[in-house]
Amino acid sequence: MLNPCDRAFIDRLARDLPEGVLSAPEPRHLEEPRGRWTGQAGVLARPRTTAEVAAIVRACATARVGVIPWSGGTGLVGGQIMTSGPAPLLMSLERMAALRGVWPEENAMVVEAGMILADVQAEAAKVGRLFPLSLASEGSCRIGGNLAANAGGTAVLRYGNARDLCLGLEAVLPDGSVFNGLSRLRKDNAGYDLRHLLIGSEGTLGVITAASLKLFPQPAARVVALVSVPSPAAALDLLALCGDRAAGMVSAFELIHRMGFDFLEETGFDLRPPFDPVPEWLVLLELELPAGLEAEATMAGLYAAASEAGLVTDGVIATSQAQGAAIWALRETIPLANRKVGAVSSHDISLPLSAIPGFIEAAPRAIAGLGAFRVNCFGHLGDGNLHWNVFPERGHGKAEHEGVRDQVKRVVHDLVHSLGGSVAAEHGVGRLKVADLARYGDPGKLAAMRAIKAALDPMGIMNPGAVLG
Amino acid sequence: MLNPCDRAFIDRLARDLPEGVLSAPEPRHLEEPRGRWTGQAGVLARPRTTAEVAAIVRACATARVGVIPWSGGTGLVGGQIMTSGPAPLLMSLERMAALRGVWPEENAMVVEAGMILADVQAEAAKVGRLFPLSLASEGSCRIGGNLAANAGGTAVLRYGNARDLCLGLEAVLPDGSVFNGLSRLRKDNAGYDLRHLLIGSEGTLGVITAASLKLFPQPAARVVALVSVPSPAAALDLLALCGDRAAGMVSAFELIHRMGFDFLEETGFDLRPPFDPVPEWLVLLELELPAGLEAEATMAGLYAAASEAGLVTDGVIATSQAQGAAIWALRETIPLANRKVGAVSSHDISLPLSAIPGFIEAAPRAIAGLGAFRVNCFGHLGDGNLHWNVFPERGHGKAEHEGVRDQVKRVVHDLVHSLGGSVAAEHGVGRLKVADLARYGDPGKLAAMRAIKAALDPMGIMNPGAVLG
Repeated sequence: MLNPCDRAFIDRLARDLPEGVLSAPEPRHLEEPRGRWTGQAGVLARPRTTAEVAAIVRACATARVGVIPWSGGTGLVGGQIMTSGPAPLLMSLERMAALRGVWPEENAMVVEAGMILADVQAEAAKVGRLFPLSLASEGSCRIGGNLAANAGGTAVLRYGNARDLCLGLEAVLPDGSVFNGLSRLRKDNAGYDLRHLLIGSEGTLGVITAASLKLFPQPAARVVALVSVPSPAAALDLLALCGDRAAGMVSAFELIHRMGFDFLEETGFDLRPPFDPVPEWLVLLELELPAGLEAEATMAGLYAAASEAGLVTDGVIATSQAQGAAIWALRETIPLANRKVGAVSSHDISLPLSAIPGFIEAAPRAIAGLGAFRVNCFGHLGDGNLHWNVFPERGHGKAEHEGVRDQVKRVVHDLVHSLGGSVAAEHGVGRLKVADLARYGDPGKLAAMRAIKAALDPMGIMNPGAVLG
Repeated sequence: MLNPCDRAFIDRLARDLPEGVLSAPEPRHLEEPRGRWTGQAGVLARPRTTAEVAAIVRACATARVGVIPWSGGTGLVGGQIMTSGPAPLLMSLERMAALRGVWPEENAMVVEAGMILADVQAEAAKVGRLFPLSLASEGSCRIGGNLAANAGGTAVLRYGNARDLCLGLEAVLPDGSVFNGLSRLRKDNAGYDLRHLLIGSEGTLGVITAASLKLFPQPAARVVALVSVPSPAAALDLLALCGDRAAGMVSAFELIHRMGFDFLEETGFDLRPPFDPVPEWLVLLELELPAGLEAEATMAGLYAAASEAGLVTDGVIATSQAQGAAIWALRETIPLANRKVGAVSSHDISLPLSAIPGFIEAAPRAIAGLGAFRVNCFGHLGDGNLHWNVFPERGHGKAEHEGVRDQVKRVVHDLVHSLGGSVAAEHGVGRLKVADLARYGDPGKLAAMRAIKAALDPMGIMNPGAVLG
């Protein structure tokens, strides 16, 4: 069992560290972004170097004190929040936010884990390059957390998840040893891939302190369209058509149900899609084009082909950056409207693409017996990743459905699992979905995960309670 | 310690398996492709199902008998060859070569591990899709081995290594349990990524039995050129120029030194590059183009821009598929010529791109004191991966340099390591580079690898002696 991060431990630790590394946690370090839980911590450590991170982890390992790696605090599954148990040490890398090097001709960059994602993007742009990871919280999340959680976002279709954007890692392992893996190599088969084991392990196998990242050329042009589709199945056919006719150019393919726009209106956001009436299903489609192809003409050609195939019924193509941004704003404000409406239950799920239309049809029926709900379904259709969220009817509050929340979740997750999907698609497991992982995870995989965790972290100090419980 | 796969064990095992699963290994199962080593095995197992693989591994774990997963037998680092120690069981998946499913609209396919790579490509082509992994041995290597070794090949620049082409795995773990991870999902953050741990572990953590693979649209057009460049540094500038002007379209970028063509002539291959005299450095450049771009015109535009920048001095653009194939044949026959000449020492190395010109200049000087050598340097420059191979001078044999081979290797590898490179870039560690991994590997990584190996394979039965020794 773990020991609490108490006064005696903190005093001992402080003697071995420079002044100012340890302090009391601020409220922001203990708050969950949606206000669901409040964390606790014995002390906040804000190291300035990898050696300091290592010294702190080593001390925690010796004293059997839990360590919670705290990055931008934007995670949605409680991976950064420990509400009970022996008080842990909270490790924030906000002071380790330096650019260690950039090699534009290699399309590579090395940054410390505490760099804010928007700053990573900006550093790449400064040298004429693109770092494509992009998500709603990019102004406050940090790259170390993005990697620990294998963040997704809006550009996965073209560029992959966070793990696909990482060439190498530096990390402090649970015994305080340092993994020096800041490689800029594109090919290296010298031993097991620790990088990919740490990425997505949500801080349970170590603290990522720096990363070597892949950069990309800036696309010559970008063009956004918002089109109405007759059904989710038609949206999938449209995706396939785009894949064939604009191979490698589709950078976003977001499905949006009309409910999202109803919510924008209901919660006072002054944003309207340019259709009257608003169609039931819309797709936000973005292309990134190489030199030599004209953006609007290419999109118009795609639209014409899709229209001929009966896959789109109406649409607008942005003819300026401002129009493109306005279309994106519609999509990106929906999660804010969702929070204002207040979900009974949110589901961050992924499915094999061909299973999606069936799921969208079956899921509302599956929960119908549990109450009167509204469903807001939107998400990264190109990746098979839906945010399928359940809300009370207008004029009702989520509190009325508190008693069935767990049942709603179970019914939705059982359906997703039966279709070969994941109930932790993009946001990870954290502490919120520990029971889901145990219920739906492959037994062979779970046993191997437990063996690996025990081997690398025999005391169980790294992010205790997260992922494996 | 392990026990030999002896008569008593084989008889016991045979009782629990259908007729014909076990047999004596044929010579082809014990031969190394370059004739360097001869392996040994107590028995050859050719299971037909995952359950049979699991039963065999379980029996081996109980009896502490080593298991060597044998795929296509084309590996170049001895990962499939055990020359000494207690005789192992050789596990060939050649009878598990079925296509389990294909979903062209999802760009996904599930195949058994024993399917030959060329057949995987053909199955994808049948449904109008591309499986881009491509390497010289594709007619005999099998996808399970490609994944176990994280194969590279000629299309890494655009499509990534084998690990980047894999959505999920089914594998038998060292205790005989089955990891059911044949996901077709593009986003799934439910727990540690066992897939990436198994990929590249060269059979030391389990036997891959099936894989879910990523497919891609067939490119609308492909065009190949062979151009002469003034220097390796100019080749890198050309790569950057292509990356900027043909972003996402460069599918191959192979550097070839004149020595390769000398070797073709010397060893009787009737293949000549279309230049007289043959320039010192050539680049094979391939583009894959989306619809809407004319192939030859795009390549000609690139060539003109490169010529204006002084990066190319001559070149030919293939105007037919036959011409393109002829250019590729030049590149792909060089390894065969190399074998005929007989290398003193071959080096499968990768470097940060910007370190490559310095390496190419410094390395011949570094080994000059060890003898009179010829160097054949060629490889996947776009990935920073060079095959930098050392040969005797014309009229001399490699046997004359037998005494300095280890020193040559050491000097080259030390230089690569000092420049931030890898000495096991594409072909892996196997048994050939165990000492290199121990010497050059990061201690934090090696300790973690050993802990993981001990946790998942406490008896050490899986591919004993490979990778970690």
